Amino acid sequence: MEKVLSGMRPTGRLHIGHYFGALKNWVKLQDNYDCYYFIADWHALTTNFENPENIKELRREMLLDWLSVGIDINRSTLFIQSKNIYHAELFLLLSMITPVGWLERCPTYKELKTEITDRDLSCLGFLGYPVLQTADIIMYSAKYVPVGVDQLPHIEISREIVRRFHHLYGCDIFVEPEGLLTDVPKLLGLDGRKMSKSYGNAIMLTDDLKTVESNILKMVTDTNRKRRTDPGDPSVCPVFDYHKVFSLESERDEIVEGCKGAKIGCIDCKRILLKHIIEFLEPIQLKRKELEKEIEDIDQYLSNTQEKACIVAANMMEKVREVLKI
Amino acid sequence: MEKVLSGMRPTGRLHIGHYFGALKNWVKLQDNYDCYYFIADWHALTTNFENPENIKELRREMLLDWLSVGIDINRSTLFIQSKNIYHAELFLLLSMITPVGWLERCPTYKELKTEITDRDLSCLGFLGYPVLQTADIIMYSAKYVPVGVDQLPHIEISREIVRRFHHLYGCDIFVEPEGLLTDVPKLLGLDGRKMSKSYGNAIMLTDDLKTVESNILKMVTDTNRKRRTDPGDPSVCPVFDYHKVFSLESERDEIVEGCKGAKIGCIDCKRILLKHIIEFLEPIQLKRKELEKEIEDIDQYLSNTQEKACIVAANMMEKVREVLKI
Repeated sequence: MEKVLSGMRPTGRLHIGHYFGALKNWVKLQDNYDCYYFIADWHALTTNFENPENIKELRREMLLDWLSVGIDINRSTLFIQSKNIYHAELFLLLSMITPVGWLERCPTYKELKTEITDRDLSCLGFLGYPVLQTADIIMYSAKYVPVGVDQLPHIEISREIVRRFHHLYGCDIFVEPEGLLTDVPKLLGLDGRKMSKSYGNAIMLTDDLKTVESNILKMVTDTNRKRRTDPGDPSVCPVFDYHKVFSLESERDEIVEGCKGAKIGCIDCKRILLKHIIEFLEPIQLKRKELEKEIEDIDQYLSNTQEKACIVAANMMEKVREVLKI
Repeated sequence: MEKVLSGMRPTGRLHIGHYFGALKNWVKLQDNYDCYYFIADWHALTTNFENPENIKELRREMLLDWLSVGIDINRSTLFIQSKNIYHAELFLLLSMITPVGWLERCPTYKELKTEITDRDLSCLGFLGYPVLQTADIIMYSAKYVPVGVDQLPHIEISREIVRRFHHLYGCDIFVEPEGLLTDVPKLLGLDGRKMSKSYGNAIMLTDDLKTVESNILKMVTDTNRKRRTDPGDPSVCPVFDYHKVFSLESERDEIVEGCKGAKIGCIDCKRILLKHIIEFLEPIQLKRKELEKEIEDIDQYLSNTQEKACIVAANMMEKVREVLKI
């Protein structure tokens, strides 16, 4: 089976945007690939070194969410990046052959440097972020990396680093990774902005169902539909975007007709959505409650797969050191 | 006892320039400090990643030279950098908080980028060199680092990184290192250029004594002294520079008088020097021959001190991770 690798920064509890944007795909990939999923806690420091929250707690919460949606430790190799120190060694060695220019020209680097002004992104770690990411990927000979379009330049850097390494040292020990683009639905926050826990506009996987109900019912709809008797336009309604993700096609057809003809009101429409969201969240939350009881110490829970990842990494590092004659 | 740390890139066999420029001082420091001396093989890759020679062999040759001049494994902690993987972890973590600007402004970085044109120095590893060096030093709470004047800006960066780390994370776990400037004699190569094995102008610690004799006798002297009867000027004579290092003051007084008054010839003068150089080299070479027989595998020879270094490093990394809450 070919290998897939992906990681997520430990941001604590996840929201439905994380699920539909990444985790749903991760779960499915388990059927056809040998998957490596890791908690990228060192990466969290590249952009947030000034205020390290309690990463230990964030790691646990995120892992519980992963497991509750169907990431399966019996099928996938789950591990914590910072507990596999070989990633740091490979990062160091790859940094020796990676031109600074490649990193400076990376679009995400330029964008983030411009966009983020409240944090200090002038550090070597942030510049070297794609090199650490490359180490993460090629350590496990991962063939595919599920990414969004914006991450493709990083994969391109990884491929270039691999080619340069192979060329310089006359070897062929790494796999050139490929981005695995998945068609993910756009799921904005409750207020129409990007969904983010910090904006308070997210539906968390662990949100109390009463809270979810109240949040959905408060959602803004088509602002031109002022009265129940006004016809609405689903194509500009944030609630309808959610229907695209949660509801059946037949329901959506009825909603479009009902909304445009002012035959159903926004509350009716939201109730349909709510039913689906609750159907979606309830089993996840039940499973999570079990997992919370079952898993006290995630280090212990992960010990087998963490060890497996470390062994794979140790074997790769032996090859790397041999090639470098070090 | 306060700690001293220093490292040397594994360049293979060493010459008398290495001895008088660094090793002589290292040997002496063992009397008053808890010394950590390491083989900086990862550093060797920062400027020479394109042609890694057999670093394993270079490490062995260099270590044998260290030991033959009096570096004492029973008093000092000797280890190989690349076999203490914690240095890579600390490098990675420190890179998160080190502004790229500090590194770009480093005089040695600017100089080397200008001077060295035959190798590619545009890589992240070369830019991050002072960060790796900082990790090497502060890992062991070294108070003093014997350096040349040109290396002082690196120590300054190390001090700044320590202060920034302590400030950001409200802790005080590292020792701010200080450069230990030592007055070392200027010892140029046999041809008056910088002494370097690659220029073929060096007296190696392991040079056959017949070779040393022939090389000394061929040395250029005061070029204005064409005939034996011409008076010479020791202040412009490369041989006299060697006398400053090897000969007694009383001998030098006689040589100055003899040369200026054309009472001694250059060959006479060189014979005096040669006697001292041989007196210096002979015991070192005898000791080295014993060590060569004694030490087959340097990993095994170093195992105790390597382990000690790893334990000290592991303890420091526990503190670092605790502070970073990772």
